[in-house]
Formats: sequence, structure tokens, C-alpha cells
Amino acid sequence: MSRTLKLTLQYDGTAYVGWQRQANGVSIQGLLEEALATIEGATVTCSGAGRTDAGVHALGQVASCAIEHSIDEITLLRALNAILPGDVRVVAVERVTPDFHARFGAVSKTYTYWIRNAPVSNVFNRVYSWHVPQLLDHAAMRSASEALAGRHDFAGFQSSGSDATSTVRTILGTDWHLASSDPIRVPPFSREGLIGFEITGDGFLRHMVRAIVGTLVEIGLGRRPPEAMKAILDGRDRGLAGPTAPAHGLFLVRVDY
Amino acid sequence: MSRTLKLTLQYDGTAYVGWQRQANGVSIQGLLEEALATIEGATVTCSGAGRTDAGVHALGQVASCAIEHSIDEITLLRALNAILPGDVRVVAVERVTPDFHARFGAVSKTYTYWIRNAPVSNVFNRVYSWHVPQLLDHAAMRSASEALAGRHDFAGFQSSGSDATSTVRTILGTDWHLASSDPIRVPPFSREGLIGFEITGDGFLRHMVRAIVGTLVEIGLGRRPPEAMKAILDGRDRGLAGPTAPAHGLFLVRVDY
Repeated sequence: MSRTLKLTLQYDGTAYVGWQRQANGVSIQGLLEEALATIEGATVTCSGAGRTDAGVHALGQVASCAIEHSIDEITLLRALNAILPGDVRVVAVERVTPDFHARFGAVSKTYTYWIRNAPVSNVFNRVYSWHVPQLLDHAAMRSASEALAGRHDFAGFQSSGSDATSTVRTILGTDWHLASSDPIRVPPFSREGLIGFEITGDGFLRHMVRAIVGTLVEIGLGRRPPEAMKAILDGRDRGLAGPTAPAHGLFLVRVDY
Repeated sequence: MSRTLKLTLQYDGTAYVGWQRQANGVSIQGLLEEALATIEGATVTCSGAGRTDAGVHALGQVASCAIEHSIDEITLLRALNAILPGDVRVVAVERVTPDFHARFGAVSKTYTYWIRNAPVSNVFNRVYSWHVPQLLDHAAMRSASEALAGRHDFAGFQSSGSDATSTVRTILGTDWHLASSDPIRVPPFSREGLIGFEITGDGFLRHMVRAIVGTLVEIGLGRRPPEAMKAILDGRDRGLAGPTAPAHGLFLVRVDY
């Protein structure tokens, strides 16, 4: 009898072409489907909540699939982790109702983008944050980010090549994580010099979070005023926004259903 | 005129054969000496405070060298970081008196060893901590570690191949860093599930910290009582201690002069 499973995954995206299967390299979806097929003894197809790009990381990517094998969930979790490489971990396996679909059932997704704002880059954060050596005006960035909440047309923050039919999305909230509130100074796990921008929405266009962060950094550097964010939203022209921030600072943190 | 310089370095040891120049691969010392030679226009020889092994990381390795070039310290720091790969950073350059020697002048060194104690390994800590899935008895480990402070013969924690003439060392202090005291739960920089063992001493024998940690983990797993630590010290026989913990959990944190 077929069972539908919800799998929660963490991965370091550095070595991969992204979540989705592609002809030109190794994808997380491909690795997961091959690991599942090893156990199932037949092809297994997975659906993922978010199509993370090459270099983007995940702390709580969600995938769904159906399997026939009677293996229990905890043993499946262990078996998958024994097969998968160390930079991809299954952190939870749950049996769900057959109508569960990781992508279409997602109500919201949360991403965090990490910026290392210090003169010298950090060896241990180098593939997990964007190094911006010039001092950022965090108050200006925070002020600009407030324009994002709510229902907007995000055409101004969409990369070409997107296949979205509508560019309207709802941002449910934004938040900032600042290292100045870090009471423990024990590198390499110190957050000293790190700024995290968290954003939750009902969906995101291609490169949307990275274009927002690229714009926020331009505002933090004083190249644009905080009011620019609203003007870019209203303008709906990708040419108005800042550059796309690099992939390696971005994390898919959580998917809610 | 020749100037003596003190350089403080951070590095991710994953890709390297260790601090010291070796015929079989790329060393941190080799990279630093080549970067310095590019600026100096002549060969530069560096001395390092601690000979970290392959895979061991550094947050505050110290090197000393003498250069003739008139470049100022801050420009030298920037130039070295522009030449060095991203997993090796010079975090400070200071002019010191000609008698300064990174290795012979060191009064004490501090190492921290990180253990990830959770059922599933963490993708982002995988090369920065030793994954021990079974629950460790931390109180037993802490109790055992108290036997280490003071002046002891550490022959029982020395690997073969050491060229030390004396095996007597003084441990100035030990400390534990526990993730349970971490108030911020923002992966990937979360310390959740991490246990850090910090040890400061006037010197360390080959693989000494890793043999101590391997023994502490055996005690934490209940395979030996906390009193075993003192018995191994007194026995002065490497066969008595636990296995050598893997290199990738170890960090050279600080060198004091």
C-alpha cells in the first residue's frame, strides 16, 4: 500500500546546481530521489516546496513523495542519511495524508539572508554569508524593509527567465537578526558581524529575495534613500532595483502548511 | 631596514595538510610564505605558534616573520588577504620587537574542541565538529576534565612520532561551552547540540588535545568512569587512553605571549 511522506531537509547548497534536477550537475532532488529509489527498489519522484538555486542553502526544505515499501519512518530517516552525502541531511520523516503536496500545499515560506558586515571576511561563514566590508546603515535598511510587508506586485524584483504567471505576492513579515545581541563570543559559531534579514511570504518570484537584499545593501551603503524600496515596488521595473545578492548568503529556513 | 611582524590568522583546515610545509600537499605556512614573498619580492620564512595537523582549524594562529619592504601593516593585511584563498585570512598584522618569535615566545595556547551531540549531524557544522549521536553524560565529562589542570606528565596522551624531549606540560585551565545556554536559535549559526571543550596550556604534545577529547567522550558514553582520566595520567601509557578524536573538531583559538 502506498504511503505519502513529508521529508524535511537541511543542505549546504555550495556543491550543487540547486534543488531541481538539471542536466548539467548534481541536484538535491536528484540525490534524494536516488536515495529513496535505493530503498524502494523502484523509481521515486519527489516534489520540493521551494526551488532553491545553485549555492542556496536550506534549513527546512520540505519534499513530498509516495512509497510502497513498509519501512518505518525513523528507519527510513537513518537509511537515507546513510546514503546521502554529509552536506545533505534528512531531519524529519512524517507520514501524511495522500493529498499532501510539498509545493502546492505550502501556505508560506521563510528565507533568511546573512550578510557579514566587517572589514575582513570570516573563514567559517564564507559560504554562508555575503561579505560586505563597508559599514552598513542598519537603521536605513530596517526602515526600507518595512515597505515590503503586504500584498504587492513584485515585478521590480523578478529576474528574467521566471515562469510565474502573476507577479503579485504577499509578504507576511520581515525581521532582522543582529549579532550585537549575541552574548556568547565563541567562534567559529559566533554571529559577530552578521546581519540576518528574514522574510516570510506566500510565495517568491525567481531571485526575488536576492534582488530585495541587493537593494537593501545599496540603501545600507547610502547609495539610495530608504524610500527607494517603495518607489521600486511601484515602478515594477527590474532595472530600478539593486543588483542580485549572491546565492551563498540565502537560506530557505521554513515552509508552513 | 628589516621589520619583525606578528601575524594573526584564521583558517579552515579542511583543504590543507596542516600548518607546516610538507612535500605531500598545500600547507598554511606555505601559502602564507608565498603570499609574503609576492609582496617582498624575495623569500620570506615564517614561524608559527602551533603546528596544527591536517583538518585542524585556527581562529588565532600566530606567525612571525621579518620583511624588508616598507609597506604599512594595514596595507600588508589587505594585500595578503587579496592573495590568499578565502579559507585563510590574516586578521591582524602588528609590528613587534626583533626578538619576538611566534613559537618560542608563546606563554600559552588555547584550543577548543567542538562535539555535535545530537541524533542527526548538522550540515553546517559537519567539518567544524565531531558528530557523536549517542547522548553524552556531560557532568561525568566535566568531572573527568578537572583532573587535567596543573603540571602533569602527559605521556599517556601523546601520539607516536612526537619529537618532544619532555612530556611534562602545565594545563592552566579547562572550560566548557554548552549550547543549552544559547538564547538565539537562528541556524545555521546556532550552537544547538554543540559542546565545546576549551583547554589552555603552556604547550601540547602531538595529538594531545584529541586524545584527551577521545577519552572524555568514552567517559561521556559511560564506557569508563570519570576517575579514569587521573588513572591514565598516572599510567603514562598511550594504550590506556581513549581513541584520538577526529581533527576536524579542533580549533587553535588563541596564543598568548
